[in-house]
Amino acid sequence: MTTPPPVSARPLLIAMGDPVGIGPECIVRAFCRGQLQDAVVVGSVQALRRAGQAAGCRPVIASLSPHGGRALAEGWLNLPAGCLPVIEPEGLPPDLASLPWGQTDARAGRASARCIEWAVERLLDGQGSALVTAPIQKSAWAAAGIHFPGHTEMLQALCTRPGLSPPDVRMMLTNGELSVVLVTIHQSLRSAIDALSVQGILQTLRIVQDAAKRQGLGQPRIAVAGLNPHAGEGGLFGDEEGRLIAPAIEAARAEGIKASGPYPPDTVFMKARHTAERPGAFDVVVAMTHDHGLIPVKYLGVEHGVNVTLGLPLVRTSPDHGTAFDIAGQGLADPRSLEAAVAWARRAASRSALE
Amino acid sequence: MTTPPPVSARPLLIAMGDPVGIGPECIVRAFCRGQLQDAVVVGSVQALRRAGQAAGCRPVIASLSPHGGRALAEGWLNLPAGCLPVIEPEGLPPDLASLPWGQTDARAGRASARCIEWAVERLLDGQGSALVTAPIQKSAWAAAGIHFPGHTEMLQALCTRPGLSPPDVRMMLTNGELSVVLVTIHQSLRSAIDALSVQGILQTLRIVQDAAKRQGLGQPRIAVAGLNPHAGEGGLFGDEEGRLIAPAIEAARAEGIKASGPYPPDTVFMKARHTAERPGAFDVVVAMTHDHGLIPVKYLGVEHGVNVTLGLPLVRTSPDHGTAFDIAGQGLADPRSLEAAVAWARRAASRSALE
Repeated sequence: MTTPPPVSARPLLIAMGDPVGIGPECIVRAFCRGQLQDAVVVGSVQALRRAGQAAGCRPVIASLSPHGGRALAEGWLNLPAGCLPVIEPEGLPPDLASLPWGQTDARAGRASARCIEWAVERLLDGQGSALVTAPIQKSAWAAAGIHFPGHTEMLQALCTRPGLSPPDVRMMLTNGELSVVLVTIHQSLRSAIDALSVQGILQTLRIVQDAAKRQGLGQPRIAVAGLNPHAGEGGLFGDEEGRLIAPAIEAARAEGIKASGPYPPDTVFMKARHTAERPGAFDVVVAMTHDHGLIPVKYLGVEHGVNVTLGLPLVRTSPDHGTAFDIAGQGLADPRSLEAAVAWARRAASRSALE
Repeated sequence: MTTPPPVSARPLLIAMGDPVGIGPECIVRAFCRGQLQDAVVVGSVQALRRAGQAAGCRPVIASLSPHGGRALAEGWLNLPAGCLPVIEPEGLPPDLASLPWGQTDARAGRASARCIEWAVERLLDGQGSALVTAPIQKSAWAAAGIHFPGHTEMLQALCTRPGLSPPDVRMMLTNGELSVVLVTIHQSLRSAIDALSVQGILQTLRIVQDAAKRQGLGQPRIAVAGLNPHAGEGGLFGDEEGRLIAPAIEAARAEGIKASGPYPPDTVFMKARHTAERPGAFDVVVAMTHDHGLIPVKYLGVEHGVNVTLGLPLVRTSPDHGTAFDIAGQGLADPRSLEAAVAWARRAASRSALE
């Protein structure tokens, strides 16, 4: 381990994502729009060059050495202005720029996984400020024999200390108007209901509180949505509110967390929504299920949505879209969600650094 | 049964709702804002006069006779301009204007139920064009020994023909940007999942199609939302999409209904949303659960929300709020949702009449 560079010299690291999806195009476009001034891309120089051709904007790419720790910061800080800094980790498959756009490929899967792995190692070593991941293709990971279901599980594994359990994480979706944290995610609705527990809800509230604290944001006002219509209507429409959610809120409050609820799911998101005319009543809403939380946060469009993983020992965000294989390589990719993910990560990292 | 008057002479009937809630205030305010020109209120003259005082707008109330059929239309058509026409059904409890605002009262419950009953009888008799119901207080109905859980069940009972089953109905919420119809409503989320069936989903699609047809709207583009995250992700996150929803869609399509899906719940509402800049991809979304459907339709505010009961032999709408006992009688009631309910009912009735 080398000595970490000073905070101001730690770049934000962007993992390129699947090289035949829209990730590299979004990155190049965001750079050309002046949104990546403090970032280093971890990816394939070839693939990013091809993405620039597709996107109709061809920045000069400065290839930095993947070796050494401090070298990352030094190489980055000494770059001439207007160059897109890219670090190509050792071990990337060759000829990534010759793969057809928008088709599942094991080599593309190996490449996207390797970039994440490399970036996380550097971040845990204090060489970067935050991680932004462009979309990966799950089928390409499967083809490459990488058995993580998605980013989150891979990041948990990479951040697990020897002899300890993986860190407990939660997905947050945020878009400037609304921030939502999910208690359950990728499982059937029926099994999500079965999976709810006082401990799981309480742990979610602790993770939210802790993430806010590490960013110096004080105590967020957390609204906890119920599970059932009308939050159970006093037990008439289900008992999870009384049996699980209310006790978790009470326990969290006893720990000094500003949580309240359970509120009826159909109106709590509306009440939490921040607009120019009306500040929302809450800073974040904790939702019991994937779609209770994601329906409102996506309702006005996904262009500004940011996916944040709370609970990791590093700041990690990603855009709120996938590889979009149907439009990859056509110059149609919209970089705004990636830009929002970068902006969120930058803010969070600078706040954490202030502590 | 008397001969129904010509279509143009059938007033829209507004049931007053609970006299100590905000219903009467909303009605008087909407009238003073010029939004009730073709309506007759079925309610207590006293209670509406008191609501006018609370609302700070005191229209001249023209009390019409509750007797006879054609008399309703004639009395209404011969009114001087600027009068609010009110019909007080026989059998209303006395002294309704002396009840305290915002407190559950059996007399108030009896009164709100009686007004609905009277109005439905006239509508089934062809004397009115549509029904708009102001909010009732369920606890007041319970206190009065009226054992319907809400409007919907009472309307079903009132519309049941001798020897037949009650009409199968579905709740639609609509707000100009988005229209949502619910397969399940007031039950726990767990029991709602258990209650889903091919037949219930197919019947929902038929009811939507039939309601559109009766209004001369042709074939609506109906999106069917899934139940599980990512609409089940090919069976990985639940089997209801493959086992229940897809077969119902297929059966509906075989009947000529323009239904498609199942779509992932988290993005289908966004795609269906109509705005000035972008027409939505669908006319209506069918949601499996109460909150999947109501979260997006309420997200931008409930001021313009209209609740429509599909499947009844009459047009029935209501505002998307309750009696709001906490603000009743204080001049704070917002009449916009009632106005939207009246406008929707008026349009639907005139379209139905054109057939």
